[in-house]
Amino acid sequence: MIVVAALGGNALLRRGQALTAENQRENARVAAASLADIVRAGHDLVITHGNGPQVGLLALQGMAYKPDEVYPLDVMGAETEGMIGYLIEQELENALDHSRTVATLLTQVRVDPDDPAFQKPTKFVGPVYDKAKADALAADHGWQIAQDGDHWRRVVASPAPQDIPDLKVIRQLLLHGTIVICGGGGGIPVMARSDGSLKGVEAVIDKDAVSALLALALGSDRLLLLTDVAGVFRDFGTPDAALIDQMTPQQAADMDLPAGSMGPKVAAGGRFADSHPDRVAVIGKLEDACALLEGRAGTQIKTRSQPSGDQ
Amino acid sequence: MIVVAALGGNALLRRGQALTAENQRENARVAAASLADIVRAGHDLVITHGNGPQVGLLALQGMAYKPDEVYPLDVMGAETEGMIGYLIEQELENALDHSRTVATLLTQVRVDPDDPAFQKPTKFVGPVYDKAKADALAADHGWQIAQDGDHWRRVVASPAPQDIPDLKVIRQLLLHGTIVICGGGGGIPVMARSDGSLKGVEAVIDKDAVSALLALALGSDRLLLLTDVAGVFRDFGTPDAALIDQMTPQQAADMDLPAGSMGPKVAAGGRFADSHPDRVAVIGKLEDACALLEGRAGTQIKTRSQPSGDQ
Repeated sequence: MIVVAALGGNALLRRGQALTAENQRENARVAAASLADIVRAGHDLVITHGNGPQVGLLALQGMAYKPDEVYPLDVMGAETEGMIGYLIEQELENALDHSRTVATLLTQVRVDPDDPAFQKPTKFVGPVYDKAKADALAADHGWQIAQDGDHWRRVVASPAPQDIPDLKVIRQLLLHGTIVICGGGGGIPVMARSDGSLKGVEAVIDKDAVSALLALALGSDRLLLLTDVAGVFRDFGTPDAALIDQMTPQQAADMDLPAGSMGPKVAAGGRFADSHPDRVAVIGKLEDACALLEGRAGTQIKTRSQPSGDQ
Repeated sequence: MIVVAALGGNALLRRGQALTAENQRENARVAAASLADIVRAGHDLVITHGNGPQVGLLALQGMAYKPDEVYPLDVMGAETEGMIGYLIEQELENALDHSRTVATLLTQVRVDPDDPAFQKPTKFVGPVYDKAKADALAADHGWQIAQDGDHWRRVVASPAPQDIPDLKVIRQLLLHGTIVICGGGGGIPVMARSDGSLKGVEAVIDKDAVSALLALALGSDRLLLLTDVAGVFRDFGTPDAALIDQMTPQQAADMDLPAGSMGPKVAAGGRFADSHPDRVAVIGKLEDACALLEGRAGTQIKTRSQPSGDQ
């Protein structure tokens, strides 16, 4: 079975950790150990990952050196796909004793120039500023800014992923038994010019949405959305908190979750599971990858008609 | 025929240009136009590229932000493979009107831990400093430093590339007619630990040497070493300068060229051509890719026994 596994931002950075190369490598090793179990269980594997903190760091480094020459988000996204992909690839190859080939593929993802998200940017990127500094940066760089708690930050559009031009390449690699790392950070957002050529866009695509699109396009039956909590909780953060072990796509669509937390995972998982009764999306802890896949942990999103054959 | 084309550092940065994203994109477009001609002529194509200025910029940005958390060279190399690969891939896909698939692959390259290069680092990386600053940085970061003209710089080993673990992946992609961008910056240098697992190394592999290794391993008959001059010149920089249109591997080996200029190209091209009478390495201008391939421009390195069938 083809399994698409999406690593949350915490896969390479635990909450509160400094974004050093060592910390990221250490966390990549933990992720790789869990992902290797999926491969050993006989599945084909496609891995995606987040890149929010890493793009933030590149933005900070660029601003600290030459603020006028900070790279656009598509280019910084490509840089993070290289860095994070390398760390995961190397650790996964090591975890599998080099018995399997792992390929990291730069991945452009096409978005619609008319996506309504471009009219209403919602995705915070980079560091926080006070209002005056944020205003000055917005004027200098043509940024849009918005309030984030007590501070101000750059905000960009998060358009829906439409199409993955390299899908054919991913299929070619899977055909040969190669494990593929792709779509990092939600992929590099690109859009078509009027002549059909593609160009990068200053936007950020949701990583869980791209992972669901990828799983659908590859005909995968399992989408794992991996994070640092055990699944979706009822009454999260209260004494009554309880793990929801199963929900339908409709229940997923009806949940009202904040955008920064489980929201995108539940939305993407629900869309995926809704597309076919054989398809199951699972949300849960990175370390539990195999248990999630086997239905022994996490929150399973599936239609009622798809239990283990008994309904 | 499989053609391996190595883009010199100038492919993305002309001498004297600022290293902005716009300049790199513009230069990538020029490179793509020339490379597209090779594809249209019916050849399979593997593209490698340099990354010296880009790694230098990442080092400067990192030092400007948090000097204690500058990333190691393997990780910065991976970042540049992402960025440069993306720009070339997108421009080449556009140049070919999206009629062909181009894949950019992160590429580790294995080096020997006992390579004598580690005893005598020769490759300058990053910015120049005065002696006092360079000494302080060397003490802080465990760097080796060396004099470069009037200044001091960090210097790292440039070990010989031994093996490309992803060779199988590159073959898989070529088999399906996919154009492959790989081995950027000479690849990400890695070496085996005693347990066989791989780890990154603080080193830089020569991009022309990796390109020759790749061409040999893929069974390619043409290695194009592309730069911003028309080929190898006799008495370069004097009024008597004359393009050498042809040389043997032996003549290539006997040339005494400075390391920073044509040296690595002539050495890599000579080794490649020497391996088989059918193999030709060509050094010349990026814009002339097709003419170089057809023997109408540049410096051709080949054994005497390999003219166009009339021997």
